[in-house]
Amino acid sequence: MRIAMLSLHTSPMEQPGSGDAGGMNVYIRNLSLALGALGHEVHMFTRTADESTSSEVSPAVFMHQVQIRPGAQLSKEELPDIIDEAASLLKEHMAGLNIDIIHGHYWLSGMVGLQLAEAWKIPLVVSLHTSAAAKEFESGIPEPEERKEAERRLLAGATRIIANTPVEARQLSRFYSVDKEKLDVVLPGVDHKVFHPDQNKLRRPLGADDLHLVYAGRLQRLKGAHVLIEAIALARAEDPTLKITASLFGANSGSADYDLPALAEKHSVADVLSFFGPLQPAQLAAVFANADVVAVPSLSETFGLVAAEAQACGTPVLANHVGGLAYAVNDGESGWLMEDCSPHLWAQQLLTLARNPAMVTQAGHAALEHSGEFTWERAAVTSLASYRMASTPAPTPSQQL
Amino acid sequence: MRIAMLSLHTSPMEQPGSGDAGGMNVYIRNLSLALGALGHEVHMFTRTADESTSSEVSPAVFMHQVQIRPGAQLSKEELPDIIDEAASLLKEHMAGLNIDIIHGHYWLSGMVGLQLAEAWKIPLVVSLHTSAAAKEFESGIPEPEERKEAERRLLAGATRIIANTPVEARQLSRFYSVDKEKLDVVLPGVDHKVFHPDQNKLRRPLGADDLHLVYAGRLQRLKGAHVLIEAIALARAEDPTLKITASLFGANSGSADYDLPALAEKHSVADVLSFFGPLQPAQLAAVFANADVVAVPSLSETFGLVAAEAQACGTPVLANHVGGLAYAVNDGESGWLMEDCSPHLWAQQLLTLARNPAMVTQAGHAALEHSGEFTWERAAVTSLASYRMASTPAPTPSQQL
Repeated sequence: MRIAMLSLHTSPMEQPGSGDAGGMNVYIRNLSLALGALGHEVHMFTRTADESTSSEVSPAVFMHQVQIRPGAQLSKEELPDIIDEAASLLKEHMAGLNIDIIHGHYWLSGMVGLQLAEAWKIPLVVSLHTSAAAKEFESGIPEPEERKEAERRLLAGATRIIANTPVEARQLSRFYSVDKEKLDVVLPGVDHKVFHPDQNKLRRPLGADDLHLVYAGRLQRLKGAHVLIEAIALARAEDPTLKITASLFGANSGSADYDLPALAEKHSVADVLSFFGPLQPAQLAAVFANADVVAVPSLSETFGLVAAEAQACGTPVLANHVGGLAYAVNDGESGWLMEDCSPHLWAQQLLTLARNPAMVTQAGHAALEHSGEFTWERAAVTSLASYRMASTPAPTPSQQL
Repeated sequence: MRIAMLSLHTSPMEQPGSGDAGGMNVYIRNLSLALGALGHEVHMFTRTADESTSSEVSPAVFMHQVQIRPGAQLSKEELPDIIDEAASLLKEHMAGLNIDIIHGHYWLSGMVGLQLAEAWKIPLVVSLHTSAAAKEFESGIPEPEERKEAERRLLAGATRIIANTPVEARQLSRFYSVDKEKLDVVLPGVDHKVFHPDQNKLRRPLGADDLHLVYAGRLQRLKGAHVLIEAIALARAEDPTLKITASLFGANSGSADYDLPALAEKHSVADVLSFFGPLQPAQLAAVFANADVVAVPSLSETFGLVAAEAQACGTPVLANHVGGLAYAVNDGESGWLMEDCSPHLWAQQLLTLARNPAMVTQAGHAALEHSGEFTWERAAVTSLASYRMASTPAPTPSQQL
């Protein structure tokens, strides 16, 4: 198959952990590479303010950066204005590639894909990754009505829809009245060649050492790192002999008054917290592998790729029971899911983990095993099944008998 | 990790579909290659009657053919006699390799592994693949008591045990009183680069053509191809206008009076049946991709790799609800599981499928999707979790708190 992957809002080649680049970039890049490895031709398209370029990133997998609004730094909020412009520019760039199917990621690329699919009479598959209605539902913060309305039209017009998890599929069906027959689920994968256990790790064989926690992700309220900091403060207040440390990796994204170092000072836990910038995947894997527990305190998460990556390093995950994290973590086996993001609940769990090193070790083995379910090869094969379904003409009543 | 894979009874490099070589060979070879791709060093050992040889089959994955009983053609039944001899010869060949863990496949290699693991004080993981007690239970044909007793001792002595499916795990626990804490499940994978759909397949868009069935596997009673032949005869008797054809790929293995062409003559269906020898994987994939349905009428099957391979080609599977086939096939979605192997039941299902081409097409898409769960990368990661568990010293009571 010749597949066009549209990711206008952020480049699949960008590094996650800063700006708007997160798990979605990783998803699109790895899905494209895995489809290529299975013998398909994949063309990724993204927007650039500079000159247009095209390159082959692996055999039969191409990255096209298309110049849209030259020189303009567009904020996330301004991107909806360029949908029509993007569609007509992409139409030029895609001409002659004989694309069989368009896979649009995030609602912006979905809207562009809808125009191209209609023009060329080819199927459109859409992955929203994050939807306004679900975000609103989980965080309680209202989202713009126009975006919700655009998403509703997009989902109605797409040939098929790919959700990242069964939770997302249910949300789309509920919030946008999507026909369940059109919905497929493709769980993300993990690059196990990068994210793997450290053979020499035996940090706390006797529990003599500190419980070392790692957080990796953008520093913004929705990702909940403040919950972790408050929980550490509460746990230390309850047990002053508690040995616990935490390292946080990621750049501030969004509001400047989300100041975690200041919060750490305020709660008198700055001595056990370290803040670092975002890491490259290989460095992140080493950090995960040598942590006791990776904390994912997100208040909303479509899947939570970081949780899958941590587990692939043989490290259990402590997370909230929200969105796709319920699928990323096997609660009580490969990690622990907190019923809500209350720092009190988190503090109790930190105390339990610090006092039970064998429980943490055991969960690490289960975490590695659970992470085996998340391969990009599986994601590619499952996506192909969706593409094939989208490409099959619906049977006429006489055929269905 | 440095892993020794013992497969004395049959070489992992041998072609399945003839003699004693079946899915187990594919399993061991692909698991070893996938472990190598994740950065581990794997040494496969098998028996040869010729000179000993060693070769690197992919980076850090080695195949050692060890000469045991030079020149002797040993039947499956004579192999138990060479266990002690094999253990002492392997000890020589493995010296200096600094093996961290031994993974023995089938009970013969398990017994050899037990001696090596005890001598070197390293953990032993055992995969039986097929157990005498389960085979006896499913087929009703008695198995030798000595083998069952040897398997019981082996499972008691192994550090951990890997079952191919949850069904196998339950059987081992039930028939051999294995401690459930020692049991892990590693579902086999499929090589999706080889087994994939044919993009040009649209055989029966209007159901105008015949329903084309494919069978691939050894021709022996336990694999049940006779059920398929009898079912085709019954279906044609019920509906003489039925357009149905079947191609059978595989070599006779076992009893010479299991004569399927003669059975086809007897039931007057020789005109719609074609018999072929076993195929190479790439040819088999093309055959699967262009079949309407792949039939797996096995009376017993630990997993049924052929069912997973067929689905990876986008073709649904018709099988019996036995052993691991319940996991390999998603009943009613990616194929159909018959409650028992009665040719009458099979005949009814063949008539239904022949009359509902849209149902077959739809199941083909679901089959591809379901096959995405079966990757060798997942199998390798899951095996590693088991190896790590086997390598972790059990926590002392004081550590468990």
